Amino acid sequence: MTRTVGQVRADVEEASRWLAGRVVRTPVLRSPVIDELAGARVLLKAENLQDGGSYKMRGALRAVGRLAAAGHTGVIAQSTGNHAVAVALAARKNGLAATVVLPVDAAPTKVDRARAAGARVVFAGTGVEERVAVANGLSDESGHPVIDAYDHPDVVAGQGTASLELIEDAERAGTPLDTLVVPVGGGGGVAGACLAAAGSAIEVYGVEPVGCDSLARSLAAGERVPVAPAPTIADGLRPSCVGELPFAIVRDTLRGVVRVDDEEIAAAFRLILTELKVLAEPSGAAGLAGALRLPPARDRQRTVGVVLTGGNVEAALVAQLMTPRSADLTGEGVAA
Amino acid sequence: MTRTVGQVRADVEEASRWLAGRVVRTPVLRSPVIDELAGARVLLKAENLQDGGSYKMRGALRAVGRLAAAGHTGVIAQSTGNHAVAVALAARKNGLAATVVLPVDAAPTKVDRARAAGARVVFAGTGVEERVAVANGLSDESGHPVIDAYDHPDVVAGQGTASLELIEDAERAGTPLDTLVVPVGGGGGVAGACLAAAGSAIEVYGVEPVGCDSLARSLAAGERVPVAPAPTIADGLRPSCVGELPFAIVRDTLRGVVRVDDEEIAAAFRLILTELKVLAEPSGAAGLAGALRLPPARDRQRTVGVVLTGGNVEAALVAQLMTPRSADLTGEGVAA
Repeated sequence: MTRTVGQVRADVEEASRWLAGRVVRTPVLRSPVIDELAGARVLLKAENLQDGGSYKMRGALRAVGRLAAAGHTGVIAQSTGNHAVAVALAARKNGLAATVVLPVDAAPTKVDRARAAGARVVFAGTGVEERVAVANGLSDESGHPVIDAYDHPDVVAGQGTASLELIEDAERAGTPLDTLVVPVGGGGGVAGACLAAAGSAIEVYGVEPVGCDSLARSLAAGERVPVAPAPTIADGLRPSCVGELPFAIVRDTLRGVVRVDDEEIAAAFRLILTELKVLAEPSGAAGLAGALRLPPARDRQRTVGVVLTGGNVEAALVAQLMTPRSADLTGEGVAA
Repeated sequence: MTRTVGQVRADVEEASRWLAGRVVRTPVLRSPVIDELAGARVLLKAENLQDGGSYKMRGALRAVGRLAAAGHTGVIAQSTGNHAVAVALAARKNGLAATVVLPVDAAPTKVDRARAAGARVVFAGTGVEERVAVANGLSDESGHPVIDAYDHPDVVAGQGTASLELIEDAERAGTPLDTLVVPVGGGGGVAGACLAAAGSAIEVYGVEPVGCDSLARSLAAGERVPVAPAPTIADGLRPSCVGELPFAIVRDTLRGVVRVDDEEIAAAFRLILTELKVLAEPSGAAGLAGALRLPPARDRQRTVGVVLTGGNVEAALVAQLMTPRSADLTGEGVAA
């Protein structure tokens, strides 16, 4: 089915070869406490240790690298944060100018990081439509192409390389993945994961915050369904609609979507910090929250891979999430 | 000089070969922000990602492994936390019984981890002398040997393997170390670092909290000088006196000791969390705090290795340290 949208596993493999040495081959982390909670062997791909603090660097570098090779001198991106930071860093690495469009309520950390990478930062509203309109206007003026945060084949393939490395490392360690879990914003990462797992028996799940479940609703409806995103601490998982290209890739290959609430995301954030000793942003921790929701296998220990997508989070939010309180697990379960 | 205490670089190399595959080969982390603050290329060895959450696992596993091979069925350890946890885990791995003696004010996380590893936990006062007395009494009763937290050749060699890996990885990356910085409690880690760096031009520095500077005072006096340890957030760096074996190793090989205060340690903790995305315990963050105190080299960019020794820290302390406030750098500078 994925052939019909023109993207195949080979695109991820080619992106992976090209990115080797250009991005960090991030470690795979484990914790006996997490394994016990999950009733499974859980392998977490620590993309919070990636350059730029998130796996978005992979897609951005792949896309910017190809545009630079094609002679472009500048690029434009819009996102709630990590993609913009990644494009800014990738552009600097390639000697291109970058303009990034962020929401007015973007996390200050992400704004600072985009500026530190030399990007021009433009603010536009709070929704994706406003940012897209401004980005397209800037592109018309300058002639510089827009690199979409998920509706872009190089971005999907690039994000998929994180899943591919996790699949490879799990095989090499003698614990091949049965399941792969990826948080869903616009769907680029989960689409890349589906491509990386294509041809294998690995079941891929997406994770969405409750009320930000455009993908789950789209899968149920058989067509893309936008939502009015509910408030969530997972600021990177708030797009109002799953992307066209990601949806076309995942609609027939994704095993399901797990919905998680803020308490579950916060509990996963704390587990990642105290057990794995690494900092996830809530959008990244959502993957583990989803993995902890999967029913344990009955017959044998299952191996579950989780892409811990990023770690760019405000100090004040870390303080808030680490202030001890009970984890109230009240999410809505597994859909599709 | 180190030959006179019977310990040489070859002991660390042998321990490193033996530990390969038995401990995690932890990654080396970098951040452009930290490099800029340090005026140097800073490579951090992330031993917080080690099994048991600290580099103490290296020495504990080496020591317990040799005792198990010699036919012992149980071991005893005393420490403020990480060494006890590491001995408990190493004992379980080798099928030995473990009894660990902790201070009554030990971090609950460390008590829980020792118990989770199957160790019997005995509490004894708040000072090292009380714990040593209880540990020796338990040893007399049971016939099980005490594995000292730092006055033990296998512990020193084992801890030194973290430095050796960092030295090797820095060389392999084309950025060989000029300087190596290690936090100092009883001195096992810094002694191991001196052994690992022996025969090279690498300058090794220890880092002690202000008021917990037994090593700095001992170096100045030419003999071991105990202190009444001042309060510090670096709970692992509070021994009242540097160990006999570590002091004998470092007295003629250590380049110097940097004293850091709690504000500097807290600032380093925040940098490690927000820039490197990993969780250090304050005792581990002290190494970076010390590295940031070294004067920048004038002629060229220096490469500074830092052993980030552990990451076992209470949630409430993380919350406290991440509550935004200004970093007031008022330490006392470089001694010896």
